[in-house]
Amino acid sequence: MNEALETMWKRRSVRKYKADPIPEEHLHLILEAARRAPTGANRQNWRLIVVRDPDVRRRTAEACSGQMWVADASVVLCLVTLPGEGKVNGTIVLDHAILAATSLGYGTCWIGSYDADKVKAALGIPDDHGIVCLTPVGLPAEQPDPRPRKPPAEFFMADRFGAALDYSV
Amino acid sequence: MNEALETMWKRRSVRKYKADPIPEEHLHLILEAARRAPTGANRQNWRLIVVRDPDVRRRTAEACSGQMWVADASVVLCLVTLPGEGKVNGTIVLDHAILAATSLGYGTCWIGSYDADKVKAALGIPDDHGIVCLTPVGLPAEQPDPRPRKPPAEFFMADRFGAALDYSV
Repeated sequence: MNEALETMWKRRSVRKYKADPIPEEHLHLILEAARRAPTGANRQNWRLIVVRDPDVRRRTAEACSGQMWVADASVVLCLVTLPGEGKVNGTIVLDHAILAATSLGYGTCWIGSYDADKVKAALGIPDDHGIVCLTPVGLPAEQPDPRPRKPPAEFFMADRFGAALDYSV
Repeated sequence: MNEALETMWKRRSVRKYKADPIPEEHLHLILEAARRAPTGANRQNWRLIVVRDPDVRRRTAEACSGQMWVADASVVLCLVTLPGEGKVNGTIVLDHAILAATSLGYGTCWIGSYDADKVKAALGIPDDHGIVCLTPVGLPAEQPDPRPRKPPAEFFMADRFGAALDYSV
């Protein structure tokens, strides 16, 4: 078990945050993980809005189905895609940022429940751009237990759809 | 710089593979990283086909726009989504598998160029299911240089779309 695997094993969806700010050097490492993430044909057709202003955080959280705890984290990230771009590349980019944040001790939570028009209004995102997901990034004020997962044989298949592949966990 | 960040820094799109098989314990760690990945509302609405049979690998590579080098890796993974599911959750799952493989010394390459009907035919995937992406997983036979990236100010914005956020790399 290496530290990269440990980071994925220990990641949780954190919904309670301390107000402490994130040091600049940590924030830049999180952004750098995003910047280095792969995109199809190296198109790099994404933007990331880094929300630290408390009022903008609050308006963003309101746009996320009123999940106001999102605004308690000192940073909220919003992954934006350029016109015509699908969601795969942006998801990879945000996943790398989330895992980088996890490795540095911060909590995150994939936010896929939002009103796109309200998020765009809160952050000034042009209508023709897309939103993939958002996440708060901050010091966790809770340590959630792992969520249950289906057993391996329900996910994995050997060589062909339907041929269960199993292993002991 | 921790080992999780180092894993993301060192990941490359590898297009040349050695034939060596992947030990079962490593394959299971890669699959376990996928199994533990988050999905919206913990829906876990994905399946992963683990292709090791050489003939099936070859047919899969043909379906990936004829990128036959994909079949040189000892394992090819194909991320399948259940009917009605978007691509975000499956992308997160495959990204975790790819980073786990990277952390264990294996090469991978996001394959987003494929003929969905041909991949479904090669792997017996039902018509109503979706495909997110595929990746070979195997010992790399090349060590590609990093691809260029745009500078931070072209990706990152402070609080509002268009307000560049910069840092020194």
